[in-house]
Amino acid sequence: MMHTIDWEVGWSDNEHEPPSRWVPAVVPGAVQLDWAKAEHWDDHTYGENWRQYGWMEDKYWTYRARLHHPTLSEGERLFFISRGIDYHFTIRLNGIELIRQEGMFTPVELDITDQIHKGTEIEIVIEPAPKRVDAPISRSQADNSCKPAVSYGWDWHPRLIPLGIWDDTYLVIRPNTHIIACEVFYDLNDTMDQVEVNLKASFNHVVSGELIWKLIAPNHETVFERSCDLSSNTCTLNFSIDQPELWWPHDHGEQSLYTSEVYIKSSLDSQPSAERYRQRIGFRKVRLVMHEGAWKEPSSFPKSRSNPPITLEINGRNIFCKGTNWVHPSIFPGTITTENYRVLLDLAKAANMNMLRIWGGGIVNKESFFEHCDEMGLMVWQEFPLACNLYPDSPAYLKVLDQESRSIITRLRKHTSVVLWCGGNELFNAWSRMTDQSLPLRLLNANCYELDPKTPFIMTSPLDGMGHGHYMFQYSPTEDVLQAMPKAQNTAYTEFGVPSPSSVEQLKSFIPLDELFPPKPGTSWESHHAFNALSENMWLMADQIEHYFGPYETLEQLVECGQLLQSEGYKCIYEEARRQKPRCSMALNWCYNEPWPTAANNSIVSWPAKPKPSYYAVQASCRPILASLRLPKFEWKADEWFEPELWLLNDSPNHVQTGRMEAYMTLGSGDRQLLLTWDYASLAPNENRRGPTARYLIPDLDSMRITLELIVADKPEWNSVYTVLLKGNDQRRRISSSNLNFN
Amino acid sequence: MMHTIDWEVGWSDNEHEPPSRWVPAVVPGAVQLDWAKAEHWDDHTYGENWRQYGWMEDKYWTYRARLHHPTLSEGERLFFISRGIDYHFTIRLNGIELIRQEGMFTPVELDITDQIHKGTEIEIVIEPAPKRVDAPISRSQADNSCKPAVSYGWDWHPRLIPLGIWDDTYLVIRPNTHIIACEVFYDLNDTMDQVEVNLKASFNHVVSGELIWKLIAPNHETVFERSCDLSSNTCTLNFSIDQPELWWPHDHGEQSLYTSEVYIKSSLDSQPSAERYRQRIGFRKVRLVMHEGAWKEPSSFPKSRSNPPITLEINGRNIFCKGTNWVHPSIFPGTITTENYRVLLDLAKAANMNMLRIWGGGIVNKESFFEHCDEMGLMVWQEFPLACNLYPDSPAYLKVLDQESRSIITRLRKHTSVVLWCGGNELFNAWSRMTDQSLPLRLLNANCYELDPKTPFIMTSPLDGMGHGHYMFQYSPTEDVLQAMPKAQNTAYTEFGVPSPSSVEQLKSFIPLDELFPPKPGTSWESHHAFNALSENMWLMADQIEHYFGPYETLEQLVECGQLLQSEGYKCIYEEARRQKPRCSMALNWCYNEPWPTAANNSIVSWPAKPKPSYYAVQASCRPILASLRLPKFEWKADEWFEPELWLLNDSPNHVQTGRMEAYMTLGSGDRQLLLTWDYASLAPNENRRGPTARYLIPDLDSMRITLELIVADKPEWNSVYTVLLKGNDQRRRISSSNLNFN
Repeated sequence: MMHTIDWEVGWSDNEHEPPSRWVPAVVPGAVQLDWAKAEHWDDHTYGENWRQYGWMEDKYWTYRARLHHPTLSEGERLFFISRGIDYHFTIRLNGIELIRQEGMFTPVELDITDQIHKGTEIEIVIEPAPKRVDAPISRSQADNSCKPAVSYGWDWHPRLIPLGIWDDTYLVIRPNTHIIACEVFYDLNDTMDQVEVNLKASFNHVVSGELIWKLIAPNHETVFERSCDLSSNTCTLNFSIDQPELWWPHDHGEQSLYTSEVYIKSSLDSQPSAERYRQRIGFRKVRLVMHEGAWKEPSSFPKSRSNPPITLEINGRNIFCKGTNWVHPSIFPGTITTENYRVLLDLAKAANMNMLRIWGGGIVNKESFFEHCDEMGLMVWQEFPLACNLYPDSPAYLKVLDQESRSIITRLRKHTSVVLWCGGNELFNAWSRMTDQSLPLRLLNANCYELDPKTPFIMTSPLDGMGHGHYMFQYSPTEDVLQAMPKAQNTAYTEFGVPSPSSVEQLKSFIPLDELFPPKPGTSWESHHAFNALSENMWLMADQIEHYFGPYETLEQLVECGQLLQSEGYKCIYEEARRQKPRCSMALNWCYNEPWPTAANNSIVSWPAKPKPSYYAVQASCRPILASLRLPKFEWKADEWFEPELWLLNDSPNHVQTGRMEAYMTLGSGDRQLLLTWDYASLAPNENRRGPTARYLIPDLDSMRITLELIVADKPEWNSVYTVLLKGNDQRRRISSSNLNFN
Repeated sequence: MMHTIDWEVGWSDNEHEPPSRWVPAVVPGAVQLDWAKAEHWDDHTYGENWRQYGWMEDKYWTYRARLHHPTLSEGERLFFISRGIDYHFTIRLNGIELIRQEGMFTPVELDITDQIHKGTEIEIVIEPAPKRVDAPISRSQADNSCKPAVSYGWDWHPRLIPLGIWDDTYLVIRPNTHIIACEVFYDLNDTMDQVEVNLKASFNHVVSGELIWKLIAPNHETVFERSCDLSSNTCTLNFSIDQPELWWPHDHGEQSLYTSEVYIKSSLDSQPSAERYRQRIGFRKVRLVMHEGAWKEPSSFPKSRSNPPITLEINGRNIFCKGTNWVHPSIFPGTITTENYRVLLDLAKAANMNMLRIWGGGIVNKESFFEHCDEMGLMVWQEFPLACNLYPDSPAYLKVLDQESRSIITRLRKHTSVVLWCGGNELFNAWSRMTDQSLPLRLLNANCYELDPKTPFIMTSPLDGMGHGHYMFQYSPTEDVLQAMPKAQNTAYTEFGVPSPSSVEQLKSFIPLDELFPPKPGTSWESHHAFNALSENMWLMADQIEHYFGPYETLEQLVECGQLLQSEGYKCIYEEARRQKPRCSMALNWCYNEPWPTAANNSIVSWPAKPKPSYYAVQASCRPILASLRLPKFEWKADEWFEPELWLLNDSPNHVQTGRMEAYMTLGSGDRQLLLTWDYASLAPNENRRGPTARYLIPDLDSMRITLELIVADKPEWNSVYTVLLKGNDQRRRISSSNLNFN
C-alpha cells in the first residue's frame, strides 16, 4: 500500500531562505529537469543547451509537498520512505527537522505517525553539490564525498551535476507490529549438492503471533514452509536443501532463482499482514582464482609475488568474462526507468556479454538493474563511488563512506548477479595516487568482509597483471592495436577502447546543421566530446582516420571509416584477450553506453540505446565459439608477407567436434580466393586451439580494403570476417567503402 | 602485589586420565624442559639429543598447583592471570572447568575469588600440539591453527614443538573497584607541533571516587594531571600538548617516551589503589609512502598499477630501513628472558640496524621485547603467526585468528616501535598459495583497520616490487651475488641470505668430536642444518666454498672461507640495496639470530648471541654514512678489466661536507697501490653520491685474494674494505687466508 506524493520544487541562495518560486517536480527525477521544464527549455542533450544548467549546482533546492494520506486505523503506522536523495539533505515535517543526511545511497525510512497529526507539510532541502574547497573545477571537487565524480565533468560527460530525489519515494502504512529487517543467507557446500538456507528477521515488537517463511522453487513449487513465534525481537530459521538448482551466467547454464517469502501472521486479529518480504535467491559459489601457470611466476631471485587472482570461478568452473564497462545511461540517474535498464541489458546479453563492470565514477544502479541482471544471467562487477581521485583518510569522509558502503553492500548482497566488489576505478594510478594503505579502501575491505565475505573484493582496477587502455586504434606511428595486443600479457583487460564517431543520423539529432560538417573545435562537436576531451584530437581522432583512409570529403565517409576502425580494433582486442587464455580471463571494453549523445566516443551503444556497427563486431567476437584470425597488423604494403594465424576459440562449457575451417581473402572488389584449409581436432570445454598460419605475398596494387573470411563447415554461426588495408603507392589516397567491397 | 605459584607437571595419553607422575615445572617455560630436567637429560641443543623430545608433542600435559594466597580483606578480589599458555588448554579449579581456550597469544584473566573458597587446586590441561588431520609431518600440520609454524620443522629449526605456560602467570589481588581496561591514544597533527592525547578507561563498578590520570614527560616532569569521577562505567579524558617531543628511530633522533599513569582514588577509604596502570607513549607518525618516481611506472599501455608503497616515513621523513629478520632466540619461547632480548637487541642496534622484521613463522614476542625496542629506537615490523602455508577460509580457523589477532593488536599497538603490521610470511608465493582474496588476510586487514588504523598493514611479504632471496653466494655457475644484485630492481629486499658455517668453537660445542671433520650428512651436521635443510647441500654449501677457494683440508679453512663469502655477500647486498635508493628503501637480511646452535645458517649471530664475522661486515655496511664500492663480480682472471665504482652512501638526516676518498688495492700479500682519488661534492641528508669508476687490468698471477680499501680523508669511520679473488692458472687451487693478506 504505497501512496505517492505530489511535489513542488524551488531554489534559493541559502538554506534558511525559502524559494521565491515553486514549480512542479517529478519524483524520482532531478531538480534541474523540473526547472528546465517549467522554463520550457529545449532538451539538454541538444547542442550547447547543457550550459544553461551550470548555475543550479550551487543553489539550495527545496522540495515540498502536502501529504494526502489515508486515515490510519488503530494500530497502524505511517512511514515516509525514500530509496535515495541526492546528495546532502534535510527533511522537515511542519518545519521540524526529522533527519539530516549526507549520501544518496542510504535510504531514508521515517515513522511519521506521531508527527503527522500536527500538520502535513513535508520539505526536503537539498544542499548545493558537494565540492572540496580550493579544488579546481573538475572531478577533484568530488574527492571528499561519496557523490559520483562523473558529473563534475569527464571526457564523455559534460559538467552537469544532478541533484534531487533520485529514487522511489512514497508513504506506506504498516501494521503496528512489522518486520524491520529480514534477509536470507545461504551456504552452498563444496560439492554444491546441498545448501543451508538461513533466515534472519527482526521485528519492532514482541507480540503473540508468528512469522511465516516460505521458499518457492524456480518451478513455483514450495520447497518448505517454516514458522517461528514472535516472542523475541529476532528470529532465525534454517533449512537444508539437497540438490539445489544452481544459478549460472547465461552462457553457462540456467538462471535458477528461488523466492523467499516472509510475513507476519498476527494472532490478535484475522487480517493479513500488510507487507510480504520477498527475496529472490540464486545459489552459486563465486571465487577469484589464480590462472593456470600463475604460481610459476615470478621464477627468478630476488623473488616477488605472483600476480593476484582475477580469474572468476562460478560454481567451480572458470568463466572467461566477456563484457563491458557500464556507465549510467542518463546524466540524470533519477530519470532512469526499469525499461531503460532492460533494453540496454537485453542488448548486452544479445552481444554475448556475461559481465558488466559498474564503473566507480557513476552511480550504484537502482534495484531493477540488479533484478534484470539476476534474471538474465549477467554478472555484475560493482564498484563503490570512487574514481580517479585521491579520496582522503579524513574522519569526516570515512564516516560517510562507511555509511554509504554499508547501505550499498547490504542492498546488493542479496543479488546473485553481483559477483565482485571493487573499491573504485583507477585508484592506484598516477592520476589518483591512492594505495593499499589508503584508509577508505581498507574500510571498504573491512565492510565487505564483515557484510558479504563470500563475494570477492578488490581495491581497484587495474591491479598488478591487469591492464587498462589503450583507447585508440593506432598506439604510435609504428604500432597499431593489432600489433600491440599480442605483446601485452595481462591477466585481464578491464578497460580498453577504440573511439568512433556516432552515426550520421545520431549526429544530426543534436548538432545544429550549420556546425555539422566539417567537425570543428569550439562547436557542439567539442562539447559533445569530439575535441579536447582527453586530448586535443580525442575522441574524434580524425588524424588516425585520415592516416589510414586518406582525407575525408563527407561526414558519411568520416563516420564509416571511423566506425570501421572501431569495429576492427574491438574485434582484435576481444579475440586476442581470449587467445591469451588461461593467463587472461577477462575482456571488458571501455565503454558500453553513454549518458547523453556524444559526437565521438569509445562506446559501442549510442545514447540512449542505439547499437553502433562496433556493437555487432563485439557481438561476433564474444560468441562462445568462433573462428578467429590473429592479424599481425592493419595496414599492408606490396611485397610484405601477410601471415594471419587461424584459431578456434571456445569459452563455452561444451566440447567442439572435429571440423574444417577455410580462410578466404578478397582484395577490394576482386574475387574471393582460398588462403588455407584447416582440419581441426576436437576441443574440450573452454579450450582454444591455435591453428596454422597462412602465408600470402601482398601484391603491388592500388590502395584498397582486404576482406578476410573464415568459413567453418556446417557451422556458419562460427564464421568470422575481418578487414585490413592494402596501402598502395597510388596518389589517390582515399580508401572508402563506397567504391570498394567491404562486408 | 603479584603472587607466584609453584607448579608441577605430568603427562597422560588422554584428556581425562591424570598423569601418573608429576615433576616440578618452571613457569614460564615448556613441558618438555621440565620433563627433560626431571629425567636428567643432556642439553637438547647437543648432538642428536633433540630427537628424544619427539613423543611429547602428542601427549596431554597437565600442570597443577596448590594456590597459596594471602587472606583477602573485605572488598578484595583474587585474580588468576596468565599472559600466555601454549596452545590449546583447559583451566580447572577444584575440578571445575573455568575456561577452555585455543590460542597462545590471548591472555587469561580469571576472577577466582568465589571459587577459591571451595578449594585451592588449579589444573591446566594442555592438549597435544595442533595438527591438521592428514597433513604430512611438516609445517603444513600448523596450517589450521595459530600455533607458530616454525617448530613443526624448518630448514634451521628442528622438529620440536613447545607446549606449556610460556609467559608470566601469577595471582594478583585487586580492590573491588578496579580498572578493567585503560589505554591512551593520541592524534599527532600534520605539522607535528601538537598532539591530542586521549585516555579511555573502564571500570567494573560505578562507585564514588575518582580516576586520576597523569602524563609525565621524558624529563620526568608532569605534563598534566586530570581526573574524572567514577559515576559511570567508562571515562574518557583528553589533553592537548603543544610542541611534543617526538619519538624517532635511533639513527634519526631521540627516543622520547612519555609515561601515562592512571589509578583509582577511592573516596570510601583512604587506602591507595592496588594497581597503577602505566603506559609509555612515544609520539610519532608512520606511513608507507610511494618511492620517488613510482607513479611514473608503468608507463606503457595496457597500463597496470604502480608498485605498492614500502618506503617507511616516520614523522614526515623517509627512512631507509636497514635491519634483519628476527627469529625467536630459543626453541622454547617460554625460556626467553628480558635479558636475552636485551643482549640481542643491543647487538642489532650496535650493527646500525633500525628495523627488525618479526617473521610470521615464529612467536609474537613478550612485552619486554617491545619495551626494549621502544627505548632503543628499533622499529618493529610485526607479522601475525602465518607463514608459508595455505591458511584456510574455514569458520573454525577464522574464529581463532580473529581472537588471537585482536589480542596481539591491542597489546602491541601501545608500543611506539611497532610501525608495520603484516599478515605473515611468503603467503602469496607458490609454496603457500594464499591470495588477496584469502579470508584470513582480509580479516587481519579489517582487524588492524578497526583497532590500529594509523599503523600501516600489508598482507604479506614479498608484495609486488619487493624481493625475497636469493640465499646463496653463487646464484648460478655464471652469476654471483655481486653480479645479480645490480640487476634486481626491487623496492625492498625484505629477505636475502648468504650462509656460512658457525665458528669452530661453536661447532665443537654441539657436534661430537668424532663427527666434527669432515662434515657429513647423517651426523649432527645434518640435524643442525648443514645438509638436506632446504636442499641437499644447504646450508653448508661446501661446493660453493670449494668452487672459489679450492678443496679444504681443515675445519678452520672451511669455516674461514665460508664466513668470508657470507661477509662479502652481505656487504654487497646491503650496500647495493642502499645504492638503489630511492626505488629501494629497505634491506633486511635473512636472518639475524637462531633458536639453537646451527652448523651452518644464513644467520649473522650464532645462538644464543654470538656475532659471526658477517655481523661485523653488516655492521660496516649499515653505517649511516660510508664509502662504498660497487664490485662487478667476485672472481677475476688475468687480462680482465677490473672496474669497481666508488660511492658515498648517506642514509643519515645530516649533510655531508665535501671531501676526498681514495681507493687502494692490494694483491695478496703485495704492496698496497692507489687505484683512484675522488674529490666528492657535499651531500644532502639521505643522499647517495655515485662516484667515478676505476679501471685496472688484472695481471697474470697465481690465485690470491685481492683487498680493496676505501679511505676517506679525515673520516676514518667511513672507511671500507672488501675482498675479491684472483683466480690464476696455477694448479695449487686452494686460496685460504693462512698464507694471504686479508684484512
